[in-house]
Amino acid sequence: MRKIWDARQLEHAPALELHNGAFVPHAEHPGRAESILAAIGETEPAHDHGEAPILRVHRQDYVDFLKRAHADWKAAGRTGDAAGYTWPVVRRRPLDLERIDARLGQYSYDAGTPIAEGTWTGAYWSAQTALTALDIVLAGERSAFAFCRPPGHHAGADYLGGYCYLNNAAIAAQAAIDGGAGRIAILDIDYHHGNGTQDIFYDREDVLFVSIHADPKTDYPFYWGHADEAGEGPGEGANLNIPLARGTARPKFQAALDTAMDRIRQFSPDLLVLSFGADTFSGDPISHFRLETEDYPALARSIASAAWPTLVVMEGGYAVDDLGVNVAAFLGGF
Amino acid sequence: MRKIWDARQLEHAPALELHNGAFVPHAEHPGRAESILAAIGETEPAHDHGEAPILRVHRQDYVDFLKRAHADWKAAGRTGDAAGYTWPVVRRRPLDLERIDARLGQYSYDAGTPIAEGTWTGAYWSAQTALTALDIVLAGERSAFAFCRPPGHHAGADYLGGYCYLNNAAIAAQAAIDGGAGRIAILDIDYHHGNGTQDIFYDREDVLFVSIHADPKTDYPFYWGHADEAGEGPGEGANLNIPLARGTARPKFQAALDTAMDRIRQFSPDLLVLSFGADTFSGDPISHFRLETEDYPALARSIASAAWPTLVVMEGGYAVDDLGVNVAAFLGGF
Ligand SMILES: [Zn+2]
Ligand SMILES: [Zn+2]
Repeated sequence: MRKIWDARQLEHAPALELHNGAFVPHAEHPGRAESILAAIGETEPAHDHGEAPILRVHRQDYVDFLKRAHADWKAAGRTGDAAGYTWPVVRRRPLDLERIDARLGQYSYDAGTPIAEGTWTGAYWSAQTALTALDIVLAGERSAFAFCRPPGHHAGADYLGGYCYLNNAAIAAQAAIDGGAGRIAILDIDYHHGNGTQDIFYDREDVLFVSIHADPKTDYPFYWGHADEAGEGPGEGANLNIPLARGTARPKFQAALDTAMDRIRQFSPDLLVLSFGADTFSGDPISHFRLETEDYPALARSIASAAWPTLVVMEGGYAVDDLGVNVAAFLGGF
Repeated sequence: MRKIWDARQLEHAPALELHNGAFVPHAEHPGRAESILAAIGETEPAHDHGEAPILRVHRQDYVDFLKRAHADWKAAGRTGDAAGYTWPVVRRRPLDLERIDARLGQYSYDAGTPIAEGTWTGAYWSAQTALTALDIVLAGERSAFAFCRPPGHHAGADYLGGYCYLNNAAIAAQAAIDGGAGRIAILDIDYHHGNGTQDIFYDREDVLFVSIHADPKTDYPFYWGHADEAGEGPGEGANLNIPLARGTARPKFQAALDTAMDRIRQFSPDLLVLSFGADTFSGDPISHFRLETEDYPALARSIASAAWPTLVVMEGGYAVDDLGVNVAAFLGGF
C-alpha cells in the first residue's frame, strides 16, 4: 500500500492542553509521527491541492480564523498557545466577533485543542496528505494510506476540537464526490466518536457515516456518538453509531465491525474512507479498549475483504512506543 | 430601603478560574461581600422558600447536578474546584452522561465558573435572598435590595457560566408571576449582558428583558447580547439589548438608560426586577466602562422616578475597594 506523509505536518506542535481540570503536556505531539514513520516504511510527500477542496467542507470564515488565530493571540499580549474559555452552547450562529477569546470559542468546542504558531501549516498539509492519498485510490489502486497529523475527525465545518482542526476524512470524501464518485461510506474506528465527520454529513444521503467508538456517556466527545443519532432530513438513516463499553476487546469489537460492514454493504459505496485510530489499543494512555497488536491485521482483513476502493486516513493513537507497530500491523492486513 | 443578606452565601468560594488562557485567582470572591456589607448598613437574613421556586426556572437535572458536582469531582480523584473542558456547541440536548467532565460541559458554557465545595449552599441562599427581598416588595414596599452572591444573570435554565449558578433575578421574576403579578420587566445594567436571563424568558411575552451592557463583540459573554436579539415566538419584541462601546461614560450610559426606560414604560410592568452590577465603574479590573461613584445615585433616580415596585438584585462588580461605596451610592438614589 502506498503511504503519503508530509513533514510540514510537524510544524503543528502545541505545548500544553487543558484536561480534567489542569494543564498537561499535549498528547497529540510530533513524537507520534516519529513512531509511525519508523514502522511503516517508505512514504511519499503530499501534493498541494490548494484551499478549494478544504473550503468545500469548511466555512471560509473558519479557515480565515485558523490562519490568523495564533497571531491574534500574540497581538493581544498572550503567551503560549491559543485556547478559548467560553462557548456558545445555545443559539450558536455566525457572528463577527472582535476579541480573540470570543473567536476561539466561536470556532471550537473544547479547551484542550490549542492553536500554536504552526497549527495552520500542519493542518493544511494534513488535509493535502489525505487529498494526495485519495488521488492514488481514484487512479485505480485498491487502497492508500494518508498519514495525517493533526487528525481530523472531531473538526466540524466551522469548529475545531479533540486535537482536530481540518476534517481530513471529510475533505477527501467530498473531493471524491466532486470528482465523480456517487456514494461514499466513511467508517470511523478510532476510539473516539468522529463527531465532526458526523456533523458535516448529518443531512447528506450520499455519504454514509458509520462509527465504532467508546460510549460517549463515559468518553469524549460526550455529546455526540450516541446510538440514537441517525441523521436528519435527506440524511436520515445514513448515520450509524455503535458505542461500546470501556474494556471492549477483540470479540465485541469484531461483532460491531461486522454490523458496520453489513450496513456499508447495503449502502454499496463507490469508495470507503476509513478513519483509523490506534487508540483502541490496550496500552493507550487516554483510552480504555483492549485491542492488542495482533488484532489489528485481522480487523483490517475484515474491512479489506469487501474489496471497496479504500482510503485509510490516520486519526488518533497515543501509546507512542507501540503506535508505529500497531499502525503497521493494521496496514499489513490490507 | 430594606436589604437582605445571608451569610451562608459566603460558603461559595472557588480558588481559581481559567481566564484568557491561564488560571488566575477567582474574581468573584467573598471579599466582594465584605466590601458591600461595610458600606450598606443593616441587613436582614433570607427566609427559606425551598427548592420549588428555583425549579420553576431551572431544570431538575441541572439542580441535581449542581448539588452533586463537587462530590463527583472528588470521587473521580480530582483536586481543587470542578470545571469542564468540552462543550456541546451543536445539537445540544438533554443527555444522561456518567463522567463528571461530561456533566460539567453539559451544564455550563465556560471554563471560568468553577464549582467548589460550598457552591450549592451559596447559590441556594443567593436565590433565597432574592425571594426574601421580593416578599418585601410584594408586601407593598416601594423597593428592596437582594444582596445576592454568587450573582445570577449569566445562568440559564440548565447551565452555569460567568460566575453564576442560579439565576436569582429570573427566579424572583417567575415567583412574582406565580404570586399573581401579570407583567414583569427585568432591567439589567451590569457591565455584562445577562444572557441567562434573556435565554430563560426569550419566548415569553409576560417578561420584558432589557439589558444595557458592553458590546459582546469585544466583551463577555460574546455570543449573546447583540442588538438583533429581540425574542422569539410569543416573546418576539419582549427582549431589548443595548450594547455600548468600551469607554462608555455617564452621558451615553444615561441615554441608553432613557431608551430602556421608554421601552419599559410602554410595557407597563407590575414589577421591575433590576439586575444591578457595579462593574460599570471606571476602576473595575475586568471591565471597560467609565462610570464614577457620583454617577450611580443619578442613574438610580432615573429608574426610581418611574415609581414601579422595584426589586434590586446584586450582580457583578470587582473593584473591591470601591465596590461597597458604589453599591451604597446606587441604593441611596432610590
Ligand atoms: Zn481518538
Ligand atoms: Zn458583570
